[in-house]
Amino acid sequence: MTAPGTFSAVVPAGGSGTRLWPLSRSHDPKFLHDLTGTGRTLLQATVDRLGPLAPPDRTFVVTGGAHAAAVARQLPALPSRNVVVEPSPRDSAPAIGLAAAILHERDPHGVMGSFASDHVVLDGAGFVAALRSAIEVAETGRLVTVGMTPTRPETGFGYVHRGETLGVGGAYAVTEFAEKPALEIAQKYVASGEYLWNASMFVWRTSVFLAELERQQPQLHDGLRRIAADWDTPRREDTLGGLWPALPRISVDHAVMEGAAAEGLVATVPASFGWSDVGDWDGLGVIASNGSPVTVVGDASRVLAVDTVDCVAVPAGGRLVTLLGLRDVVVVDTDDAVLVVARDRAQDVKGIVDVLKARGSTDLV
Amino acid sequence: MTAPGTFSAVVPAGGSGTRLWPLSRSHDPKFLHDLTGTGRTLLQATVDRLGPLAPPDRTFVVTGGAHAAAVARQLPALPSRNVVVEPSPRDSAPAIGLAAAILHERDPHGVMGSFASDHVVLDGAGFVAALRSAIEVAETGRLVTVGMTPTRPETGFGYVHRGETLGVGGAYAVTEFAEKPALEIAQKYVASGEYLWNASMFVWRTSVFLAELERQQPQLHDGLRRIAADWDTPRREDTLGGLWPALPRISVDHAVMEGAAAEGLVATVPASFGWSDVGDWDGLGVIASNGSPVTVVGDASRVLAVDTVDCVAVPAGGRLVTLLGLRDVVVVDTDDAVLVVARDRAQDVKGIVDVLKARGSTDLV
Repeated sequence: MTAPGTFSAVVPAGGSGTRLWPLSRSHDPKFLHDLTGTGRTLLQATVDRLGPLAPPDRTFVVTGGAHAAAVARQLPALPSRNVVVEPSPRDSAPAIGLAAAILHERDPHGVMGSFASDHVVLDGAGFVAALRSAIEVAETGRLVTVGMTPTRPETGFGYVHRGETLGVGGAYAVTEFAEKPALEIAQKYVASGEYLWNASMFVWRTSVFLAELERQQPQLHDGLRRIAADWDTPRREDTLGGLWPALPRISVDHAVMEGAAAEGLVATVPASFGWSDVGDWDGLGVIASNGSPVTVVGDASRVLAVDTVDCVAVPAGGRLVTLLGLRDVVVVDTDDAVLVVARDRAQDVKGIVDVLKARGSTDLV
Repeated sequence: MTAPGTFSAVVPAGGSGTRLWPLSRSHDPKFLHDLTGTGRTLLQATVDRLGPLAPPDRTFVVTGGAHAAAVARQLPALPSRNVVVEPSPRDSAPAIGLAAAILHERDPHGVMGSFASDHVVLDGAGFVAALRSAIEVAETGRLVTVGMTPTRPETGFGYVHRGETLGVGGAYAVTEFAEKPALEIAQKYVASGEYLWNASMFVWRTSVFLAELERQQPQLHDGLRRIAADWDTPRREDTLGGLWPALPRISVDHAVMEGAAAEGLVATVPASFGWSDVGDWDGLGVIASNGSPVTVVGDASRVLAVDTVDCVAVPAGGRLVTLLGLRDVVVVDTDDAVLVVARDRAQDVKGIVDVLKARGSTDLV
């Protein structure tokens, strides 16, 4: 068994969160914002909750050059060398794989976990407990995903289908990863009790992950290992710049997890700690609600709501936001744009951003 | 018959239009705004449409000291002496009565009309034609109100009940002024064909109006006549300052028109020229709509609406206003406040202003 000290946490911080426009922008993405009114940004909260498992020197953020400075400023305790900068976005398998390869160079027996920078967890202690179980299972040689016990037939998440119990850490084998389902299928998933939400929280020995990456994506594996070998040398920039652009764009689910599940290598630890991917304004309203009729993200004194229920208000533009006689509406005020959207259309905010991009309104996206 | 040249137009420009908050403010009220996207403010449009009936030297605006400068700037052709400044708000009977008394000093045979500064008329030629009829009827010694043929059972307006035809100018006797009715009563009014909207457009000989004012409100009449007698003298300020504060606060309907109707002195000229009092955002949406799903008041390039119908957007804050998946909602963006209100609650925006006043947020109201 590996000593607890060898666990490292990796936080990929990419994506712009266009469905949370106009607060989230390409130059100022979702993970850099305090979307839950806690005083900490999603990125800071992610690192905070990993604290009991990984101290700052074993916590790594993988991000793009455009956000490296903001990440460094938001996480002053993080060593500068732990901010891993991708030359260009290449989806999650290259980002997580690069971190795995670098960590593997330093400690070939280490265990790592990967955690999105822009999700919300309500029960931090429950998160840590689930992660300790996941680390225990990972040490047995499995690729472990933390599976969230579904609380509704959500069509916006992928699911994992659990199989037999593994007799360690409360884990089950994963027989299959299922893509975002249609509503009827999601309802069957939830009713069966056999499906869990795939929260993109992964724990594994770097050696096990890299072996599967080599088997399934040999080109990607080879490139990442060569970059990692030169990472702590003067050749880093040259090697990274030469190899990175040719790496395939692929998610870690497609590159490794689905194929590994078919081989019986994936386990899931079921958990319930109040998780949300905060995928859109409606989801934020669900996770940030404290039971009051209007969920305010930000300074509540800047919102005046009368006869208004099940609404979300984000007063981020310094103005007073007033709501009267509304239901199921989200209002987001920023310095240069105001969004008013029906909650059941929140996932389509991305379309607004697409229109603005097509118009050339680059200052607004 | 009086020569046409003796008609004078009076435009009381008071009230802050709180139901059109946050665009309309106490320091920047409704009549000073271009609410219909024509490039002219409501006040300017009112004076414009009176142009064929009254040239600038026979057009008078009665307003408060706080708005006198803005009125003068918006109406550069109006002689300065035609901006009549009330020392303090005293409702419509003192405001209109002061103008009547001043005009009567200058021409005891004159006819005047009074027209709100903050209403909208779509058919300017129809307005002028109706007014010519009203002037013709007024010259026979009646107090004339222009009655708008109702197009819906509106509960936000008062009504006039018409009686027998008078055989002049298409006019009818008015048997009664009816207050804002409940919906069922409004429906009966409209179905009967005997009721017209009271649009607060009045035409009368100043001599006839002042005689009725003297009969019904002798104290008010006496005060106004004494002020008017000193108006064009060095004693104006002293007399005005001494007498005005003691004048009763009363509307012209209560002070004169209702009692005059009971005496058979009131006539109405039915008309249909697309009138609205623009009382709230819903009413503005009705009058300003050009048939498109979203009525934009202001720069349409600042509004992006997707899958949105029957909405009103007012982008007056310089920001982009985006609407997605909405129906029957009004969004008003200004420099320091954003309002989102269900159209059927538009009349309650006044309550928002009351809350802000109670909070001491005087900068916002």
